[in-house]
Amino acid sequence: MPNPASAPVTVNGRSYRRIDRPLVVVCVDGCEPDYITQAIEAGVAPYLRTMCERGTSLLGDCVVPSFTNPNNLSIVTGAPPAVHGICGNYFYDPVRREEVMMNDARYLRAETILAALSRAGASVAVVTAKDKLRALLGEGMRGICFSAEKADRATLAENGIGDVLARVGKPLPSVYSADLSEFVFAAGVELLAHERPDVMYLSTTDYIQHKHAPGTPRANAFYAMMSGYLERLDALGAVVALTADHGMNAKTDAAGRPQIVFLQDWFDAALGSGKVRVILPITDPYVVHHGSLGSFATCYLADTTRTDELRARLAQLPGVETVLTRADAAARFELPADRLGDLIVISERLVVLGTTPSRHDLTALDAPLRSHGGLSEQQVPLLFNVPLADVPNGRRWRNFDIFDLALNRTR
Amino acid sequence: MPNPASAPVTVNGRSYRRIDRPLVVVCVDGCEPDYITQAIEAGVAPYLRTMCERGTSLLGDCVVPSFTNPNNLSIVTGAPPAVHGICGNYFYDPVRREEVMMNDARYLRAETILAALSRAGASVAVVTAKDKLRALLGEGMRGICFSAEKADRATLAENGIGDVLARVGKPLPSVYSADLSEFVFAAGVELLAHERPDVMYLSTTDYIQHKHAPGTPRANAFYAMMSGYLERLDALGAVVALTADHGMNAKTDAAGRPQIVFLQDWFDAALGSGKVRVILPITDPYVVHHGSLGSFATCYLADTTRTDELRARLAQLPGVETVLTRADAAARFELPADRLGDLIVISERLVVLGTTPSRHDLTALDAPLRSHGGLSEQQVPLLFNVPLADVPNGRRWRNFDIFDLALNRTR
Repeated sequence: MPNPASAPVTVNGRSYRRIDRPLVVVCVDGCEPDYITQAIEAGVAPYLRTMCERGTSLLGDCVVPSFTNPNNLSIVTGAPPAVHGICGNYFYDPVRREEVMMNDARYLRAETILAALSRAGASVAVVTAKDKLRALLGEGMRGICFSAEKADRATLAENGIGDVLARVGKPLPSVYSADLSEFVFAAGVELLAHERPDVMYLSTTDYIQHKHAPGTPRANAFYAMMSGYLERLDALGAVVALTADHGMNAKTDAAGRPQIVFLQDWFDAALGSGKVRVILPITDPYVVHHGSLGSFATCYLADTTRTDELRARLAQLPGVETVLTRADAAARFELPADRLGDLIVISERLVVLGTTPSRHDLTALDAPLRSHGGLSEQQVPLLFNVPLADVPNGRRWRNFDIFDLALNRTR
Repeated sequence: MPNPASAPVTVNGRSYRRIDRPLVVVCVDGCEPDYITQAIEAGVAPYLRTMCERGTSLLGDCVVPSFTNPNNLSIVTGAPPAVHGICGNYFYDPVRREEVMMNDARYLRAETILAALSRAGASVAVVTAKDKLRALLGEGMRGICFSAEKADRATLAENGIGDVLARVGKPLPSVYSADLSEFVFAAGVELLAHERPDVMYLSTTDYIQHKHAPGTPRANAFYAMMSGYLERLDALGAVVALTADHGMNAKTDAAGRPQIVFLQDWFDAALGSGKVRVILPITDPYVVHHGSLGSFATCYLADTTRTDELRARLAQLPGVETVLTRADAAARFELPADRLGDLIVISERLVVLGTTPSRHDLTALDAPLRSHGGLSEQQVPLLFNVPLADVPNGRRWRNFDIFDLALNRTR
């Protein structure tokens, strides 16, 4: 008789079986696939090489806009933003008529796989780098859920675990550091060794990826660090499944100067001041490493009678890759139409979108700008430390297939 | 009274003035802008940093297909392939009904700026890395024109210069080496010092760029070498203008495995064998470093009644970015329609197009595949060692604006 605790769990129309080993899903923020390739080539990430050789490697597409919140929520719900509702880090709430961070669980429209598994009796743990994701990822979930950023404040009552700094054996990391991500991995190893959750979700920060290109010394050091922790998770018996929320590209000319299309200025010049509200969904409280500059913007027009004309004119701007109406963007990228502006603008690979120069502080940038948000950052790794069964060829994989692949296709 | 030898020269509808200093235009094969940015960041390319600080840096778009021959010919004609006719390294000649290299000057439909300047009395010199470009670049031109690959065979009668190895002071380089490009720069310095041509065009090979990512040690060593030679050209009094024929991207998953859509196999499965001829215009005699795998293909259909249906189906294939009809591709990319197939396929940033596995020898690849050909490799640097005057903002620059920028906008 099958153990009812091991019966498949259905979430957002997809069914997930339980496996007899712990599963650790890792979302490596900003993990352009070449970071892994180059670290392996440099010989500094032997366990990543082992994963590639013995396990399974696929390329997948992330959600566009290729930002952190929409993709983390897609990964943990197994569904696109049209289903879960989180379409940016930041958005214009048309009900409240205000621009707000999209960190609050009230914006979440779907249950997470983590919540469903915990309800079905699985033990679940979540560790995020930045605290901004904690509430969304932990929504409805019983178990352990805390951020490295606020690890010192985690309590048994609130986070399912206390005394985290002592248990992990590391000081509280700076929010702008590679240490913030290392703390996530170190906490994952500690939890797997001593709590052994059935399912664990680890989500890092892209502080390093915003500053350092694949294969350069600091990037390689990050992936060497990660390789070591993943090896320990493997040694503790886990299925390790790795993906990314988005890729990362240089957004500069050869001289390292940011290439920016200032959309608010463009609209103000075209229509007069204040006729269009430009929203940059990359915006979050942690802007030092990207100055709120990404490759995706959504624009609310006071007068929508000229939407088509403006769409055509914007599409001609140098640096702009594509401009879509709300309906077309919602259909193409599976986004919630009620949380999009009238026009969606995506810039080219080496170009970002801004509002107006005074609203982007680039003085804190200490390296040539690298960022994401567009179609050019859509391809991400899907990497498993085990062979997968019945993986069809010629299918388009998504980063949010990772729980399906890890739970339903491991032998 | 103006010196008639200094009167502007008009070529392909554009006018070029003469300047009172030597001009050296450098086409750095496969120079993704980040190669320069990262070499500067690493501190190994001080003169490139100086160029960025004291001169002018722009981003420009190259010609799509982002391959060597179409772009070198666009640079030296100041015009797109619709004007000069060279739309690939390799193509299907519908008149001769054969697949041939597009190296022969009989395929060239426009005069080069170099030829026009030499006819107007300027002294002109061209040095290419690979010999495949020499005939096209030198067509109609009086002056010096030779390749590093066959530098040992250059003669005064044929190439306008003899005894090249002794003059440059280097042995004949291997065609698969960074030395091949270094020879081009060394020859450029030798020519500028002792022949002082009014205009010089130097074109390198992307052997390093196909193997090494921006910022990695071998790539940085290449740009350090280049930085040193450009500094010597500057010290000899030249205006130095640098661009690229195309960018470069990884074409693999995180494990470093090439991501290939095999189009001939797909057509054969869809329509039966032999109904479609797939041409990969990256094909050339030097395939060791890319296995003839790029991100652009052109396809000749025996039966064109199903073109629209096949276009739609191909566009759905994972890894395919866009599929255009001949007419649409000719219009969008300014290509000669009579030298295109019925369908043009462009793959995504990390994906290349092949015919069938047996026709791509990947055994010689000793590093994860990096390649080009698509839209994702369109952005290239435009870098000058002098400030430019009257450079309008918000314009789309092309790599083939470089002679215009260097001759008409230097102060």
